[in-house]
Amino acid sequence: VERLSDIGEFALIERLKEIFGAETAPYVEIGIGDDAAVLNLTPGARLVVTTDALIEDVHFVLDRIEPRVLGRRAVAANLSDIAAMGARPRCAFVVLGLRPHANVDYVLEIARGMAELALEYDARIVGGDITRSPNALSLTLTVIGETTDGLLTRSGARPGDAIMVTGHLGGSAAGLGIAANPSVGVSMSRKEVDALLKRHNDPTPRVREGIALAGAGLATSAIDVSDGLAGDLRHICEMSRVGASIDPEKIPIDRSTHLAAGWLGQDAIALALTGGEDYELIFTCPADGTDAARAAIAPTPATEIGVITDEPGLRLVGASAPRYERYLRSFDHFKR
Amino acid sequence: VERLSDIGEFALIERLKEIFGAETAPYVEIGIGDDAAVLNLTPGARLVVTTDALIEDVHFVLDRIEPRVLGRRAVAANLSDIAAMGARPRCAFVVLGLRPHANVDYVLEIARGMAELALEYDARIVGGDITRSPNALSLTLTVIGETTDGLLTRSGARPGDAIMVTGHLGGSAAGLGIAANPSVGVSMSRKEVDALLKRHNDPTPRVREGIALAGAGLATSAIDVSDGLAGDLRHICEMSRVGASIDPEKIPIDRSTHLAAGWLGQDAIALALTGGEDYELIFTCPADGTDAARAAIAPTPATEIGVITDEPGLRLVGASAPRYERYLRSFDHFKR
Repeated sequence: VERLSDIGEFALIERLKEIFGAETAPYVEIGIGDDAAVLNLTPGARLVVTTDALIEDVHFVLDRIEPRVLGRRAVAANLSDIAAMGARPRCAFVVLGLRPHANVDYVLEIARGMAELALEYDARIVGGDITRSPNALSLTLTVIGETTDGLLTRSGARPGDAIMVTGHLGGSAAGLGIAANPSVGVSMSRKEVDALLKRHNDPTPRVREGIALAGAGLATSAIDVSDGLAGDLRHICEMSRVGASIDPEKIPIDRSTHLAAGWLGQDAIALALTGGEDYELIFTCPADGTDAARAAIAPTPATEIGVITDEPGLRLVGASAPRYERYLRSFDHFKR
Repeated sequence: VERLSDIGEFALIERLKEIFGAETAPYVEIGIGDDAAVLNLTPGARLVVTTDALIEDVHFVLDRIEPRVLGRRAVAANLSDIAAMGARPRCAFVVLGLRPHANVDYVLEIARGMAELALEYDARIVGGDITRSPNALSLTLTVIGETTDGLLTRSGARPGDAIMVTGHLGGSAAGLGIAANPSVGVSMSRKEVDALLKRHNDPTPRVREGIALAGAGLATSAIDVSDGLAGDLRHICEMSRVGASIDPEKIPIDRSTHLAAGWLGQDAIALALTGGEDYELIFTCPADGTDAARAAIAPTPATEIGVITDEPGLRLVGASAPRYERYLRSFDHFKR
């Protein structure tokens, strides 16, 4: 018998694509394989739809996150996929998998967090389902967004394009490490610790930035960082049929991530390459378009970390390249 | 501490409505509380969206259903909600919660069943997510439909309207009973047993019937039977601010459901009132419109079982009414 742990998440997705994509429909502009699906159901309307689940003890640990923040995070993870398409989030649908003895106040706090974060991006939670889930709390969201002008996909990167990253990477993984080892953070200031924990628990989806890049037609491709820079950049390369060359020392990493990584006995650049859940955007743009792209998303910073190449695959350049070769594999939920 | 099992599913939904519905948006025509949400994102386009989860050992037992049939059922349950709004299903999104050691062929068979049933109703599976779920297989679907003409809601029933039911009720509960007690079915013909098992495992969503009723403006309200006739008709009463009076002996129940109920030591009418998951449509129409409604959905039968009343609440009439009073409560996933 072939087990999921033998073939991994991405091979399974390839096989599902064959099954689900066997019959096409004219209204499906983009199906499985990008950050979200794009539908043209009505002329003039382009819907962008994504769905994503958070499961207890897989994506979060109950005692380490406030319920309100957990609700915010579930919505943020989905809005990040809408942002990576350059669309405007509109409506969210929530399936809550709950234990029969769940604390009602706890559940309502999750809901308040969801409503709150959705509203910050002018989206509304308009439907859902409640179901019994005896073994684990689960939060499954579907978000519908729309765009009338541009669209960011994973498939438009061209050789010579600059590779850019918004904000800073590795902070979510560092925050996760601190949450799991609270004593580690003691030598950092409370403010720095809280900022890192927030990076993991309560990330900021780059909705405004995605819309700005798509609207101005400044980016040739984009993806959000959910599996780690290496894995997600590799998705752009595969979908665009190009390669990428990046300098690990150019990856934007802030001071507290460096500090936390040191205390955790880890390497901050490795955390950025493999850590995931930073929910920043990786995007590509013409080499002469980096200033315009930076201006469009300011004050959020964007850092150039490399270049798209003809030769397929992901390569590291620069003095520290050899040290990070082994972090180029991508995270797989199943494969060991 | 207040537990979910103290207040139940429906009280929780009321509280979630307050939280999620606190801020309205002009594009939300129908939010939480109907079979699906209705969105007017673009002028001229009316989207109908529903989401629903099937969880192992809550909604199905692995050894009692073929994976392909399980996939069909997950899609059918969601299409039924689209049907109850009178809309045309278009796209489905699937979140698969899988164990790391899941058998890949088994998962692909589920996917084939999903694709197959969706295609039978001209819908496509266009996106989704795969996540690790260590304790239970879960299938969460979101379906987007659209309608350019009519819409069926839970809120339009008027006193004097006839209460109609498509097909036959109780068959799903009888099939579930037989699946759990295989020896019971031995005295029925194989064909009858298989038909009942199909009613539970592989139900038929009434998509064509819902579209026909909505398109011709023949029904004043509708809901699909997922929690049992009593509970679901009560939802129409509450949303329409009316009451209902039905004769239990008029509930359409077929011969094999009666037989199976007898063998199981249960009452077929009680199964119809409380059993749920028949995925037939309950709809209301003007008293002089029952023939037109029947003609619109033929050859699927529709049976008149009662009348909408001014007085709120659900009442039974006829000779056997006293025997079934105790089956008027609705199924709650949490409350005991």
